[in-house]
Amino acid sequence: MPVKVAVNGSGTIGKRIVDSVLLNKDFKLVGVAKYKPDYQAYLMIEKGIPVFVPRDRAGEFINSGIEPSGYIDYLFEEADLIYDASPGGKGVLNKKIYEKHGKPVVFQGGEDPEIAEISYSTFCNYSDAINKKNVRVVSCNTTGMLRLLCILEKEYGVKKALAVIIRRAADPKEDNRGPVNSILLDPPEIPSHHGVDARTVAPWLNITSAAVVVPTTLMHMQFIEVELKSPVKKDEVLEVLGRYRRFLLIDSARTGIDSTSKLMELARDAGRMRGDIYENSVFIDTVKIEDTRLYLFQGIHQESIVIPENMDVAYAILGLEHDQYRVVEKTDSLLGVGS
Amino acid sequence: MPVKVAVNGSGTIGKRIVDSVLLNKDFKLVGVAKYKPDYQAYLMIEKGIPVFVPRDRAGEFINSGIEPSGYIDYLFEEADLIYDASPGGKGVLNKKIYEKHGKPVVFQGGEDPEIAEISYSTFCNYSDAINKKNVRVVSCNTTGMLRLLCILEKEYGVKKALAVIIRRAADPKEDNRGPVNSILLDPPEIPSHHGVDARTVAPWLNITSAAVVVPTTLMHMQFIEVELKSPVKKDEVLEVLGRYRRFLLIDSARTGIDSTSKLMELARDAGRMRGDIYENSVFIDTVKIEDTRLYLFQGIHQESIVIPENMDVAYAILGLEHDQYRVVEKTDSLLGVGS
Amino acid sequence: MPVKVAVNGSGTIGKRIVDSVLLNKDFKLVGVAKYKPDYQAYLMIEKGIPVFVPRDRAGEFINSGIEPSGYIDYLFEEADLIYDASPGGKGVLNKKIYEKHGKPVVFQGGEDPEIAEISYSTFCNYSDAINKKNVRVVSCNTTGMLRLLCILEKEYGVKKALAVIIRRAADPKEDNRGPVNSILLDPPEIPSHHGVDARTVAPWLNITSAAVVVPTTLMHMQFIEVELKSPVKKDEVLEVLGRYRRFLLIDSARTGIDSTSKLMELARDAGRMRGDIYENSVFIDTVKIEDTRLYLFQGIHQESIVIPENMDVAYAILGLEHDQYRVVEKTDSLLGVGS
Amino acid sequence: MPVKVAVNGSGTIGKRIVDSVLLNKDFKLVGVAKYKPDYQAYLMIEKGIPVFVPRDRAGEFINSGIEPSGYIDYLFEEADLIYDASPGGKGVLNKKIYEKHGKPVVFQGGEDPEIAEISYSTFCNYSDAINKKNVRVVSCNTTGMLRLLCILEKEYGVKKALAVIIRRAADPKEDNRGPVNSILLDPPEIPSHHGVDARTVAPWLNITSAAVVVPTTLMHMQFIEVELKSPVKKDEVLEVLGRYRRFLLIDSARTGIDSTSKLMELARDAGRMRGDIYENSVFIDTVKIEDTRLYLFQGIHQESIVIPENMDVAYAILGLEHDQYRVVEKTDSLLGVGS
Ligand SMILES: NC(=O)c1ccc[n+]([C@@H]2O[C@H](COP(=O)([O-])OP(=O)(O)OC[C@H]3O[C@@H](n4cnc5c(N)ncnc54)[C@H](O)[C@@H]3O)[C@@H](O)[C@H]2O)c1
Ligand SMILES: NC(=O)c1ccc[n+]([C@@H]2O[C@H](COP(=O)([O-])OP(=O)(O)OC[C@H]3O[C@@H](n4cnc5c(N)ncnc54)[C@H](O)[C@@H]3O)[C@@H](O)[C@H]2O)c1
Ligand SMILES: NC(=O)c1ccc[n+]([C@@H]2O[C@H](COP(=O)([O-])OP(=O)(O)OC[C@H]3O[C@@H](n4cnc5c(N)ncnc54)[C@H](O)[C@@H]3O)[C@@H](O)[C@H]2O)c1
Ligand SMILES: NC(=O)c1ccc[n+]([C@@H]2O[C@H](COP(=O)([O-])OP(=O)(O)OC[C@H]3O[C@@H](n4cnc5c(N)ncnc54)[C@H](O)[C@@H]3O)[C@@H](O)[C@H]2O)c1
Repeated sequence: MPVKVAVNGSGTIGKRIVDSVLLNKDFKLVGVAKYKPDYQAYLMIEKGIPVFVPRDRAGEFINSGIEPSGYIDYLFEEADLIYDASPGGKGVLNKKIYEKHGKPVVFQGGEDPEIAEISYSTFCNYSDAINKKNVRVVSCNTTGMLRLLCILEKEYGVKKALAVIIRRAADPKEDNRGPVNSILLDPPEIPSHHGVDARTVAPWLNITSAAVVVPTTLMHMQFIEVELKSPVKKDEVLEVLGRYRRFLLIDSARTGIDSTSKLMELARDAGRMRGDIYENSVFIDTVKIEDTRLYLFQGIHQESIVIPENMDVAYAILGLEHDQYRVVEKTDSLLGVGS
Repeated sequence: MPVKVAVNGSGTIGKRIVDSVLLNKDFKLVGVAKYKPDYQAYLMIEKGIPVFVPRDRAGEFINSGIEPSGYIDYLFEEADLIYDASPGGKGVLNKKIYEKHGKPVVFQGGEDPEIAEISYSTFCNYSDAINKKNVRVVSCNTTGMLRLLCILEKEYGVKKALAVIIRRAADPKEDNRGPVNSILLDPPEIPSHHGVDARTVAPWLNITSAAVVVPTTLMHMQFIEVELKSPVKKDEVLEVLGRYRRFLLIDSARTGIDSTSKLMELARDAGRMRGDIYENSVFIDTVKIEDTRLYLFQGIHQESIVIPENMDVAYAILGLEHDQYRVVEKTDSLLGVGS
Repeated sequence: MPVKVAVNGSGTIGKRIVDSVLLNKDFKLVGVAKYKPDYQAYLMIEKGIPVFVPRDRAGEFINSGIEPSGYIDYLFEEADLIYDASPGGKGVLNKKIYEKHGKPVVFQGGEDPEIAEISYSTFCNYSDAINKKNVRVVSCNTTGMLRLLCILEKEYGVKKALAVIIRRAADPKEDNRGPVNSILLDPPEIPSHHGVDARTVAPWLNITSAAVVVPTTLMHMQFIEVELKSPVKKDEVLEVLGRYRRFLLIDSARTGIDSTSKLMELARDAGRMRGDIYENSVFIDTVKIEDTRLYLFQGIHQESIVIPENMDVAYAILGLEHDQYRVVEKTDSLLGVGS
Repeated sequence: MPVKVAVNGSGTIGKRIVDSVLLNKDFKLVGVAKYKPDYQAYLMIEKGIPVFVPRDRAGEFINSGIEPSGYIDYLFEEADLIYDASPGGKGVLNKKIYEKHGKPVVFQGGEDPEIAEISYSTFCNYSDAINKKNVRVVSCNTTGMLRLLCILEKEYGVKKALAVIIRRAADPKEDNRGPVNSILLDPPEIPSHHGVDARTVAPWLNITSAAVVVPTTLMHMQFIEVELKSPVKKDEVLEVLGRYRRFLLIDSARTGIDSTSKLMELARDAGRMRGDIYENSVFIDTVKIEDTRLYLFQGIHQESIVIPENMDVAYAILGLEHDQYRVVEKTDSLLGVGS
């Protein structure tokens, strides 16, 4: 019998979780908690997705012509697993409600690590999440870094890492966030919090990170420098990353793809749902090895990169599957990752 | 037996024509002419689309691992109808080649009007295109204006129109075009060429147009003022536009959609291919009537707006269908226009 | 003896008022009210400008190495005239404080019209401001429209006007406001408030306005259509505008200036303070006349366009000068307007 | 007697060299070579700067109302020193003309290193430039890196350096260059040419560089990692950089300046000519030391950063001064560097 899933919030992350759950036969979507009768609500009703609303806003929805399937507490009560996809920082308030229902919850990276028993990234600590009650899937940038670094750790050992993160300013739908014409140090300090966040999952990791925000909406770009414990060859590294499907190896010279906008166009042309790229987009010609030192650039599609990990973790939390590789294979073939 | 179609060029417009042709059972895609072995070529091969190349570049393609289906002249020879989707201004050079093959051609709006017997927009002059040899589908902005103005002319009579066009700077995939932080008068004169271009299709039209370019990639925004021959009511106009499926009537107050980026997000969420919007996106709350004067804003998705008209016109050129409404219905249901 | 002036707030508008006051021998700057010990505070101290601070923040300033000249209430008490340059909407709170001191105040366009006895724009209603206690200088876009329309009214009579305003998203210094990649209807309705605001100064004006926000920081661009009461000739209109120095007539064909960024570069090259343009930048080749109808584009430098009117109005409020033309001449020669 | 100087080209760099020459009593500006009668030409005539033009374009200038002072060859013949500020890659064509006149030339960073006897950066190799005939001042990014690295080399020894350069897409005046909404790898390889270019001046330097282009016009941002030959303390490094005036040490916490746009606002507010920042803008709170490893971010104002080095080098080429520190002091006090 499929696991009953509730999704709380349907913004950038929430709506993608919803669609993934709908694709997955192991899961059954009980419904989505909506807080405003916006166009998302209409689309969901149209797709036949049950929409649950706060008691005090039901009237507002009905007046807008949207018939809710019930109140939010019912949604939580019905579910075996709750995805919290609320705005960063709101999850901690929601947690109290979840606790009343006694249901396991997947939180997102905008929450403080303390919200959950563990912070999570599949290639780093899948087995730690097994049967946990509250797990936090780390943020888009941290997920992108950890996929790479945990694999490199496993294969070669990582002595020290540096990440310079060039962040997108806002998600494509967001009209109010800037900057419009500036490079913003965020934070105006080194290190940034990204390395610290990575260590909530991988405490062994010696990493320094720095971050700027630039006026673009499409993807983050990460410059990564890693000092490995042993010398490597470029071909070998590419072969390793290629084995894991969550890396899209981009050959700029042959394909002409050398930017985040061309990556996004590729995803649209390839027919990806919403034009998403779930993989770390590693630019092959930027992979440079100097003995034990490795440099590369990878593009991170903030809107969708955490979706595979969100799927994986459900199998751990619910104790459905102990072998991370089988889970990853399932998730990837479902979402079309690496295809 | 389906009509055999060739598509020359597969950029923003060409690749969308290709996908529309593939959806249409009245058509059979002979193949696509490609000039560079970029990722588009790989994707097409993967989708099973025959790729034809210039004789002197076949080696280049083969070296990149792409096996062409033949040379371009063969493609043209095989086709019953050719779509020219080459970069603006190149169509006129291609025309000489097409003439050798004696095939009818659909040109795009980047070409001069003189390239074809007529310039075309379905709601204005479908029947004029019947059995023509060379037809030019007007550009994105002109298509958007003409859809509206030809309908208003038919329903109410148009005395005078004004269009202030706020143009996107580049298509999303384009990395080299600006401006980055400027509002550019293009041209730094009034009128702009858009009104003139509209009159190549609708010579009766008394229109003044003005245009600026702004740093965004998603859509054009058109401000339209029309003086009609008789007084109208807002509801009536909306009802008329609603009847034609090529208008998406956006209720900003109810849906929260008040910008081009939120429109694009809607299209992604709705599962549109490439996140395209084939319709004029008319913002209901900006439709303002003062007696015989009408104002409104409409968003124009430059990448896809001309695709329906490109499909329609084939039926006219090949004399397959004389009733424009049946053609429009076919095209719209095929592409999901208005749904 | 010079008039003693206080400036409350030193953001985009406030710091420019300060510099204008410093240039003007009729005025004496008592000081500036600062609310945060940021770099502006350091610069002011360095320039010898007295900085006054709220009582409860004096410690914060001192800890940052900035020695305030006193508390804010002292500043207001000492002044003959107060410029309120606080963030839009805060002026109404400040008003209560000003009233205690019984001093005349110049408010800015971000406040509601009700804050002052009259809303003001020099070419429209200078004499109405004479001896008023509270005057509101209208916002950047309204100031730009009114300069043009009040002159046209005076010279030819204005039957009806239309303004399509393409707004900058944020001031250059502002890093947090967007959009980054969108055209935003603001508001998603027609008319926008700009026409309404213009009528607070010029109630006779029949105007419709519409506005979008675009991702740029430099200037607003206004498309203006006016139906005059009598036919005009282009040369005549240009000659009229040229006579008023607050219009920069841009000959794009000869100078190559066809965008807001090139306008800003001109101002930098010409050595203008902060690269400001106090004038309406009218693009000559966009001035198009059809009998009694006039079209044009004008660039509006939001950061500085209201500064001349802020200077002028002081002479009215304080009853120093009843002839608006002499005031304008004084202000313009002081600021280098039209030179 | 002052040295007679000619400036060939008056774009972003050329016009700033002109203004610096005008400020300097050791120099006398013979004139500027202009190739188009644009607004720059008008401004220069207005400022009394002699404008020289190509023989075949003199008519075009005269028709535009600009009276040239003569032909370009006369300008070169009169000069003791020529600044070539032509578009990148054109200098090599100009060089043949200069050789006919036998005059020493300062080339800019857009030229290949081979154009000159040496590539130059004051803090690295002033004395090598003494009495050279052709010197190339390296580009904006390279100048910014070398100022820092040559000082660190001198003070502590540099073992290895890494630069991740986040480049502005276009200069503020440029309307045609993109990207509008993308992060572009330029090049899509590691290393980028910047490290290579730095070694044309400092061949001892072990450096890897990588670069992206982002949609902004104001400044480049450089992330720098240096492994020094000996351990350092943060305060010490800041003290060293502070001693050299070509570093602006930005205290983000105290001043609120944490972005390129706020830096530019500071320069405007401080009354800098054109709002320029000649210094490397080092963000103090990003200076992080781990034993012998140093990280920091520095903003580089591409439009003006090379101007001091362009001034310095003249003293070397002409053999006017052998002590680099006296030259630097002269240039800095002239331009207001570090004040
Ligand atoms: N957008 C990204 O790039 C990204 C990437 C990775 C992780 N995240 C994290 O995912 C989480 C969600 O971010 P997002 O970008 O989807 O936000 P979002 O703003 O797009 O969506 C948030 C949704 O939550 C709803 N909501 C409002 N109040 C709520 C409440 N009390 N409980 C539940 N939902 C509520 C909103 O209506 C909205 O639909 C955050 O923790 C964020 O940090 C975001
Ligand atoms: N992009 C838009 O917004 C838009 C909208 C409406 C109309 N149009 C018009 O459509 C036409 C195509 O524009 P686009 O945006 O698709 O251009 P594009 O630059 O995206 O694509 C052009 C394609 O033509 C190929 N090509 C190169 N040389 C060719 C040749 N000699 N013959 C045929 N193809 C060649 C290129 O490889 C490329 O695939 C132009 O006339 C343009 O004005 C464009
Ligand atoms: N920026 C523009 O484009 C522009 C153009 C025309 C008119 N205006 C209007 O001018 C006014 C000021 O706008 P701005 O852009 O200069 O804002 P800003 O945000 O740049 O500056 C506001 C300043 O007010 C200070 N401040 C904070 N609290 C205050 C208080 N209680 N009293 C006084 N000052 C306080 C802040 O420290 C800051 O220095 C607003 O009414 C705005 O609508 C702005
Ligand atoms: N803009 C920057 O950020 C920057 C920074 C550092 C170095 N540089 C370098 O400085 C040089 C000039 O760049 P720029 O940004 O000032 O360019 P620009 O395009 O702003 O200006 C070039 C000027 O050269 C003139 N010109 C045209 N043909 C010429 C010819 N044959 N000879 C001389 N001049 C001619 C043009 O009219 C124009 O005034 C380039 O080598 C560039 O790489 C530029």
